[in-house]
Amino acid sequence: MPPSAASDEPRRSEKWKARREIIIDTSAPLFARQGYHATGIAELCAVNGLGKGAFYHYIESKEELLAAIHDRVMDEVMLGADRVARTGGSPSEQLAMLGDELLDVIHRYPDHVWVFLHEFPALTAERAEQFRGRRRQYEQRVEAVLQAGVDSGEFRNVHPRLTALAWLGMHNYTYLWLKPGGLMSARDVAKPFADIFIRGIAN
Amino acid sequence: MPPSAASDEPRRSEKWKARREIIIDTSAPLFARQGYHATGIAELCAVNGLGKGAFYHYIESKEELLAAIHDRVMDEVMLGADRVARTGGSPSEQLAMLGDELLDVIHRYPDHVWVFLHEFPALTAERAEQFRGRRRQYEQRVEAVLQAGVDSGEFRNVHPRLTALAWLGMHNYTYLWLKPGGLMSARDVAKPFADIFIRGIAN
Repeated sequence: MPPSAASDEPRRSEKWKARREIIIDTSAPLFARQGYHATGIAELCAVNGLGKGAFYHYIESKEELLAAIHDRVMDEVMLGADRVARTGGSPSEQLAMLGDELLDVIHRYPDHVWVFLHEFPALTAERAEQFRGRRRQYEQRVEAVLQAGVDSGEFRNVHPRLTALAWLGMHNYTYLWLKPGGLMSARDVAKPFADIFIRGIAN
Repeated sequence: MPPSAASDEPRRSEKWKARREIIIDTSAPLFARQGYHATGIAELCAVNGLGKGAFYHYIESKEELLAAIHDRVMDEVMLGADRVARTGGSPSEQLAMLGDELLDVIHRYPDHVWVFLHEFPALTAERAEQFRGRRRQYEQRVEAVLQAGVDSGEFRNVHPRLTALAWLGMHNYTYLWLKPGGLMSARDVAKPFADIFIRGIAN
């Protein structure tokens, strides 16, 4: 396997990193629109206004670019989960906040999230493993909040894993209709969703 | 636009229809695994053990095949919704049964559902419109059950459309982990999901 971009980062300038971020964000809509497998390097170069040499100065490979789009979503989602954990709120409060944070990411990054949810099977070897690990890490945050609520008696004795999957489905699936400029904001949706889910598992 | 396969059906034999169904079911895993755009007619012929001429005897075009995969899912889902409506159960009972039926389809047709949820943007013109119409028709069944529950006072005054989207997300998203031969059956999942959702909107 080639060395990961992350291990190169210390040697890279801020300008390089900023340019790379722009390439990631500019490429996500292309993958979202026409699919990862059907998108060639030539198209990625064209949409970014770069020659092949310049493109490969920032991006190791098409798959590394796909992994970077996934990482961008996971970085945001985990930052949100960290903010929630730091509040030290009750399990109900934390679950509502997790929903707020997750829908905010889905709302702000529609193309990245589309790619994230559709193209993850294209990640191979270590990149696939890393993605699964990070996704699992987030799921465990949700499960931990549910377990804490069961332990404290705030929630009834639900199965934390299955209940986390229900919660994730309800929230993640909004990527199909929760769009920037749409009728509803992330918060408009998060509140009634939290009401349904928390009443649904309350003791 | 070419005439739809449906309009040709009266002239087709049962054998032709059965063979066509097999092609649809055999092609779905290929689209699921490598994506619709990245899959060529040559591969579809190969996986079906057919020459190009024989393939086109059953399938009008790659897009028509994609539409047929979508229709197969929608046919099953609407049959389930019809069965539920015929029971004349209470809104809670009907919502639980709709969940049972939907998860059963997702569990039985993992590849078709994967293609359905990922590749619908590849449908164009009338096929896109027909797909949107059928999907909307199903969503309206769910909304109608929710509205009936609100009207009867069984459910609190939830927004039927947004609540239907929450319900659909929770159930549809199981396509990522509810697999034939997996640890959980569709019914193992449907029951706790119904418990969460119905308590969540109960008055």
